[in-house]
Amino acid sequence: MLLYDAPNPAPNPRRVRIFLAEKGIKIPTSELSIIKGEHKAPEFTAKYPQGQLPVLELDDGRILGESISICRYVEALHPAPALFGTDALSIAEVDMWLRRVEFTLMNAVGQIWAHTHPFTARVVVPQYTEFGESNRPKALAAMTRIDEALQLAPFLAGDAYSMADITLLTTLDFAAFIGVAMPEELTALSDWHRRVSARPSASA
Amino acid sequence: MLLYDAPNPAPNPRRVRIFLAEKGIKIPTSELSIIKGEHKAPEFTAKYPQGQLPVLELDDGRILGESISICRYVEALHPAPALFGTDALSIAEVDMWLRRVEFTLMNAVGQIWAHTHPFTARVVVPQYTEFGESNRPKALAAMTRIDEALQLAPFLAGDAYSMADITLLTTLDFAAFIGVAMPEELTALSDWHRRVSARPSASA
Repeated sequence: MLLYDAPNPAPNPRRVRIFLAEKGIKIPTSELSIIKGEHKAPEFTAKYPQGQLPVLELDDGRILGESISICRYVEALHPAPALFGTDALSIAEVDMWLRRVEFTLMNAVGQIWAHTHPFTARVVVPQYTEFGESNRPKALAAMTRIDEALQLAPFLAGDAYSMADITLLTTLDFAAFIGVAMPEELTALSDWHRRVSARPSASA
Repeated sequence: MLLYDAPNPAPNPRRVRIFLAEKGIKIPTSELSIIKGEHKAPEFTAKYPQGQLPVLELDDGRILGESISICRYVEALHPAPALFGTDALSIAEVDMWLRRVEFTLMNAVGQIWAHTHPFTARVVVPQYTEFGESNRPKALAAMTRIDEALQLAPFLAGDAYSMADITLLTTLDFAAFIGVAMPEELTALSDWHRRVSARPSASA
């Protein structure tokens, strides 16, 4: 297998790296530069027309895209430690929180990034800046609801660190990078962020 | 278990109904009216603050939200017929196609619905109509890429009907309902749509 990767601050490649670090699995890696547009260059889009990172090339040459789908593939081959749940209820709750993080927080942060940030002005033409700005209160509302959940349990889906937490971590760190700060008064979320950032996998 | 459901054209409740019909599973149902706002009424938001449908109430009173997470819960309890794949590769490919349908087509259709449709003008204030309109070519591009995939295989993830197909079906039918038509020249997609619409589950 070969993982086509990209360095920080790209949040999706980092999701997969943290997942692999939690599993204790090493996969050979080819690093591309998003800033140089290497993921949109013909050498790469010949392999993966979507031009997104990360992707996993299997030994038969087949290409898997979508960070979460890559992680589900590895989870099926190497079930322990489980990062997508272990029984019907935990499988559902990890998925539910993963989706909530993606559809509320990650979507809002992505729209702020796409439609308000100077860096993306090169590639998102036109930027709908008023629409983009309208996502700032949505991102804050999403963080607030997640904070409420983290007042009740150490991790999003309960007692076990999961793919939902990994996605929340990479989303919050990317949000901070583009200037969407996590309010310190969300103390459960801030405490969670300190704890998961201290895991060795967070530096992957 | 009790499934809180909503009638067509709501696409997310329909995803779960089709999934259950493919499984041959019946779950007692409580139907709410989205048009009457019953999903936002205090009786329901006391159970599920997000005010979204469908949700599944378990026998211990616990609530599962997110249509796909509900289906993953049922799949873990009743694995056959598998609608999320059976081995590492098919699990990953179903998930990859599910995510592509959601992040490209369903997201574009959702933004058209939220930001351009007269019906949603009551609840999406303000509507960013230029942004909404900018999603029409994105929806078409997503349909075109899906058509290309369906030229190579009978279903999105290969030979087996899956949750990715169910999500594509409910998304396309909802898109048609709001006036975002599937171009007839996308013949692989149109043929796929005829085949999956002829399955008994499609009327669920």
